[in-house]
Amino acid sequence: MQVDIKLKQNEKNYKVFINELDKISLSGKVAIITNAKIAGLHLNTLFSKIIADEVYVVTIPDGEEYKNLNTCEDILRQLFISKLDRTSTLIGFGGGVVTDMTGFVASIYERGIKFINIPTTLLAQVDASVGGKTGVNNSFGKNLIGTFYQPEAVYCQMDFLRTLPSREFNAGVAEVIKMAVMFDNDMFKWLQQADLKNESELSKLVQKSIQLKADVVSKDERERGLRAVLNYGHTFAHVIENQTQYKCYLHGEAVAIGMNMANSLALKLGLIDAKQRDMIKNLMHKFNLPTHYKIENVENFYNAFLLDKKSENDKIKFILPCAIGDNLIKSDVSKDDVLEILSEFK
Amino acid sequence: MQVDIKLKQNEKNYKVFINELDKISLSGKVAIITNAKIAGLHLNTLFSKIIADEVYVVTIPDGEEYKNLNTCEDILRQLFISKLDRTSTLIGFGGGVVTDMTGFVASIYERGIKFINIPTTLLAQVDASVGGKTGVNNSFGKNLIGTFYQPEAVYCQMDFLRTLPSREFNAGVAEVIKMAVMFDNDMFKWLQQADLKNESELSKLVQKSIQLKADVVSKDERERGLRAVLNYGHTFAHVIENQTQYKCYLHGEAVAIGMNMANSLALKLGLIDAKQRDMIKNLMHKFNLPTHYKIENVENFYNAFLLDKKSENDKIKFILPCAIGDNLIKSDVSKDDVLEILSEFK
Repeated sequence: MQVDIKLKQNEKNYKVFINELDKISLSGKVAIITNAKIAGLHLNTLFSKIIADEVYVVTIPDGEEYKNLNTCEDILRQLFISKLDRTSTLIGFGGGVVTDMTGFVASIYERGIKFINIPTTLLAQVDASVGGKTGVNNSFGKNLIGTFYQPEAVYCQMDFLRTLPSREFNAGVAEVIKMAVMFDNDMFKWLQQADLKNESELSKLVQKSIQLKADVVSKDERERGLRAVLNYGHTFAHVIENQTQYKCYLHGEAVAIGMNMANSLALKLGLIDAKQRDMIKNLMHKFNLPTHYKIENVENFYNAFLLDKKSENDKIKFILPCAIGDNLIKSDVSKDDVLEILSEFK
Repeated sequence: MQVDIKLKQNEKNYKVFINELDKISLSGKVAIITNAKIAGLHLNTLFSKIIADEVYVVTIPDGEEYKNLNTCEDILRQLFISKLDRTSTLIGFGGGVVTDMTGFVASIYERGIKFINIPTTLLAQVDASVGGKTGVNNSFGKNLIGTFYQPEAVYCQMDFLRTLPSREFNAGVAEVIKMAVMFDNDMFKWLQQADLKNESELSKLVQKSIQLKADVVSKDERERGLRAVLNYGHTFAHVIENQTQYKCYLHGEAVAIGMNMANSLALKLGLIDAKQRDMIKNLMHKFNLPTHYKIENVENFYNAFLLDKKSENDKIKFILPCAIGDNLIKSDVSKDDVLEILSEFK
């Protein structure tokens, strides 16, 4: 299966290949960026697929806490030592942390070299590896430093998902639920009864999610309007991840909680009803996703929104569901309404 | 005077304004990035021109040795503390170090915000601020980390050049000589008799250089072919700067030496004659530019070329003059020929 990613603002289109990683033939030097764990599990498989003159491997520590500029500098140093040049290609081989950093490093190494993503987690397959968002976190928040930079191709293999702990797998499903709630009621219904242990249902999930995301990204590469909808749940999730220093929740888990918070707000504003909010919550529970986070101080939580990239001129932009399968962006929600909702999570 | 910068690969065009900085009216937050010295000399003047709701000033230390990722992190930290968002604008106010880093920071802050360049050195006016190359140095060489990212506008004011030490002024003239030798014999002749103390001749110089560079950049934004010609002298200069740790020569001075080395190679290959080489050397001496550097070890010097961004697949690309006003890129120069030329500088 293939999904075409077409970008209006950019001359470069590319493909996402699903279960089609046979051989990748590359000219010039190739550097695989991966983490210690994925290297041990799957590097052998990847080596058997890559045809290139010179292949280098750069490993980084496994974990969101290493998604920062220091790690990028470590990667850059190794690439310069290996004398990669403008004809070289990076391959990001791992979860979203690896693929986001590989893209970022590719975008700034000698002002931009090629990269390919081979995501090994469900989250990275359905979300992080499509759309050209690259970046790292810093002490102020998540993905606050980065670029828009497109890969040459993305390869999603179901094989690599077999070794994924179920908690990480489910965190990936959270982003799929997000797409369904925002854009596709049929997909939401399908998810309610889907059996993702079945490999063909799993590939269908990946293909369908990527297609939905591709449609959005192709219409709005630089996140001026529509693409912001993909941040449903994320405004809240970023604060939660920051407050817990990325140590308690996987990204998808924080997004699940964030969606539930957004849904409470949508309910208050009359965009969804209680039954719809509960249906979404139940679907998240089907995949063992958390939906609650104890907010210590609602004022602090509210103020933390203001540093979010999506907050322009101190206006907080909330992305909310309208029933299931449609969405609304609201920048005029009163602070009182938000504080009231946040108080439900105290 | 204005020069239009038109970019084929990019939807965004912009203008360089020469002696036309009257008022700049900006919506959203504005952060001026400058260095301690320029701030003391000219920030007052700039303040009187900027109309914006909130203006922040971030100063960095003055000097090429601070053009690195650490300084960028310092800038980023201050921008996050000031809560700049995607509607904000950075203003790079200083020499090439400041404008290159401002562009780089703008390109990675929240995946890209707007920036304006107001270069205060001749070098930055004629060279660094036009073309969308942003970046920083690292221990492996100059500008090895960066992006292609275009400003909203560039303002070149002759006023700001009055406080420039003559050594720095002349270093800027080196890049103008580069443009003339590569592209424009008439301009070369004009330079031989020009009096740059005269303000109208100086603006003509700035306008003419920017126009020549704009023509090149608009044809080749991403440096696939023609734009490489702008690196005449630079392949050698980067090695010299790196070996002397950016401490002995200003960039333009290193480029002057590099051009003279390239000319020796061009002479050996029969592309120019001895008279032309000497004419170029004499023009550089008119502006007190150095043309000699003592190479300690020619093998080491040669090997250092291989890390240059312009060296692809270990082939060294030499940019050479063909008479005066034309150029040639050669990737097939034998190592022996190069070593022989380098030996002249022992």
